[in-house]
Amino acid sequence: MSASDSEILSIVPQLAATHAAAPALRRLTDAQKAALLHRLAEVLLAHTAVIQAENQKDLERMPQSDPKWDRLLLTEKRIENLAQSVRDVAQLADPTNQILLERTLPNGLHLKKIAVPMGVVGVIYESRPNVTIDVTALCLRSGNAVVLRGGSDAWHTNQYLVGLVHQVLEEHQVPVEVITLLPTDRELMKELLTATRYVDIIIPRGSEQLIQFVRQHSLVPTIETGAGVVHTYVQEEADLEKACDIVINARVSRPSVCNSLDGLLVDQGIASAFLPMLCQDFEKWNVEIYADPAAYYVLEKTGYPQLYHAQEEDFGKEWLDYKITIKVVPGLDEALEHIRTYSSRHSEAIVSENPDVCRRFLEEVDAAAVYANASTRFTDGAEFGLGAEIGISTQKLHARGPFALEKLVTEKWIIEGTGQVRW
Amino acid sequence: MSASDSEILSIVPQLAATHAAAPALRRLTDAQKAALLHRLAEVLLAHTAVIQAENQKDLERMPQSDPKWDRLLLTEKRIENLAQSVRDVAQLADPTNQILLERTLPNGLHLKKIAVPMGVVGVIYESRPNVTIDVTALCLRSGNAVVLRGGSDAWHTNQYLVGLVHQVLEEHQVPVEVITLLPTDRELMKELLTATRYVDIIIPRGSEQLIQFVRQHSLVPTIETGAGVVHTYVQEEADLEKACDIVINARVSRPSVCNSLDGLLVDQGIASAFLPMLCQDFEKWNVEIYADPAAYYVLEKTGYPQLYHAQEEDFGKEWLDYKITIKVVPGLDEALEHIRTYSSRHSEAIVSENPDVCRRFLEEVDAAAVYANASTRFTDGAEFGLGAEIGISTQKLHARGPFALEKLVTEKWIIEGTGQVRW
Repeated sequence: MSASDSEILSIVPQLAATHAAAPALRRLTDAQKAALLHRLAEVLLAHTAVIQAENQKDLERMPQSDPKWDRLLLTEKRIENLAQSVRDVAQLADPTNQILLERTLPNGLHLKKIAVPMGVVGVIYESRPNVTIDVTALCLRSGNAVVLRGGSDAWHTNQYLVGLVHQVLEEHQVPVEVITLLPTDRELMKELLTATRYVDIIIPRGSEQLIQFVRQHSLVPTIETGAGVVHTYVQEEADLEKACDIVINARVSRPSVCNSLDGLLVDQGIASAFLPMLCQDFEKWNVEIYADPAAYYVLEKTGYPQLYHAQEEDFGKEWLDYKITIKVVPGLDEALEHIRTYSSRHSEAIVSENPDVCRRFLEEVDAAAVYANASTRFTDGAEFGLGAEIGISTQKLHARGPFALEKLVTEKWIIEGTGQVRW
Repeated sequence: MSASDSEILSIVPQLAATHAAAPALRRLTDAQKAALLHRLAEVLLAHTAVIQAENQKDLERMPQSDPKWDRLLLTEKRIENLAQSVRDVAQLADPTNQILLERTLPNGLHLKKIAVPMGVVGVIYESRPNVTIDVTALCLRSGNAVVLRGGSDAWHTNQYLVGLVHQVLEEHQVPVEVITLLPTDRELMKELLTATRYVDIIIPRGSEQLIQFVRQHSLVPTIETGAGVVHTYVQEEADLEKACDIVINARVSRPSVCNSLDGLLVDQGIASAFLPMLCQDFEKWNVEIYADPAAYYVLEKTGYPQLYHAQEEDFGKEWLDYKITIKVVPGLDEALEHIRTYSSRHSEAIVSENPDVCRRFLEEVDAAAVYANASTRFTDGAEFGLGAEIGISTQKLHARGPFALEKLVTEKWIIEGTGQVRW
């Protein structure tokens, strides 16, 4: 059954069932949760051929020329990696049941603040079916139930993968409703976004359009894993070789990801030395340069082939491509001001050998990750040593930067008394 | 000028100015922030008479019979208390600049996660002008700029109080835009709720209606400091004297607050012993009882004067008054199920001398604060030893339960390298 063939009129019963089943996960021990995930990895590997057959049904519905085709594809190697990532999550420390604070108050009340699972996590995502398993693993590890709203493109694959998860849950006497795959009808999404009684948090993963839609319609608290409009500022005391390596890496190593570089700021004192160096490398990667008048003046003389005048709307653009905006600035203050105006507060970097200048930049820039003398491409849960992540949060509540396992918890105050009252 | 007389067409310039001024607060040291607050307390006391005169202008616009009149009133004693609360906040530990994590990665990158101010905090509140100073003190202490949207009822008082704050900021060479009082027009509130570029977090304080409005219109992340539908479950192994004290205290000690008791659950094995004891005390306080059939049957025999049949909508109601719902349950499982269905997840309590039963209740109930053998009235930042609070959060992101100074921060990752790139 494809989701769009379904005659489901409401997903509220499914959401209520997941909410009602969630406490069963809270009762599992750390060892039980780890065992369950190791078993899931085994089951995934054992069913590689069937997963591929189901995946084929989805692939057949999409022209191979579609850029989403490759994201949808599950090869044998990719299924192996998926199983390995489940095992990796099994080995991460359980973030729940930690005591965050404990004290006895003067009136004798014993007070504890502990980390507990969120409850029910909703994840809305697009064509990549690996998200189904990655999210399931992170949520089971942290004792959270999940409602998954994947893309209709991946329906057969997702349905089969969730079936395998259910098989493992049953083996461990856990109600299968703790992991629920929702139908993909757009109308039903609004039910999910307003189900404040059953869903504790919603995480949209995908295009800016999807995130906008969720932001506008959700009454459930959301974590935005949003766009990255990322800058690197090459200050006049930079080591120019180092600056070149950092800028090239940040722009071209993986242009389609959120931590890649969009806007370069260069101090005017070094622009005529630095930009010609840089553009030798950019030319090899066919990078389109959108330059402000001062940068344009310098670059034009080098005969750079793909040079354009930057328009106002090019600043603050997330390119996700072999394209970059370049602006020459008088110094640190103007760089900070430009970043404050155009940054999406994801990742920002300075290149400079002056430690005082670096310190001011690191302190004053308001972003999830701020770098001195390194590529912004490192903003990533695994790179930071946090393990797998659900996304990069660009908001300031709860989690900022890589949203990893350790943040899939909330707090709970437990107060034990002997009859205390407060008049 | 009253806000409603104003001809302000947009508050966006004010929001942008506050956002631009916010970094100045980040540069203040712990000692400077404390000194600024101590000076504010002095200035408030020195201007007691003028504050009262301005307050009088607001009071004159409201009939003294209005229940909001008393909340609006600032007496000499209340101004003293306000100054004292500012001094108390000055003495709390600065929550910013703490290093939450620090490590050197194998590639040599030095990684730190630090606590930093949120940036710009928006607070929307109603008639109590003390909120203006309480919020200002908490935000200045934690290095946050604030946009205040108070009630039109308190306009003169708020405007004068913010003027005093500005005087102190000027003395300390801090731009006054860091504390901005917004006009109160309803239309302009939508600008505040959608100003994602300038405002980092919005906290609504007030009626359920206000909170609903904010939840539906805000694109800025919000912290809900919401309603408390609070239960206490008297289990059959309870000490009935203790249970009586706890239930009476939780219902009548301050009926209008969110941590007061709304729904009582009583095990059927003790209902006929416990309810007649309890209603002797309730009668002294003229408490209206809305009973389910089993509780009604027991209470009717006592001749309780204000006894009504509970309707379905009475469960899950926040009474905020001398009223209570009572239901008899067969045991723990049904109590947990009832709480899962009707609780707003604020504060929940059990009374029982059986430690295993208490443990299961404390573990399984999903609420910000869960009690064994104590009154739910203790859910409060000051009672928990956290100092002043901005409200009680009933959501699971970022802060849960008392939202105190320690939570007015976000995280920032700082990464220092020597030219590292990631291919």
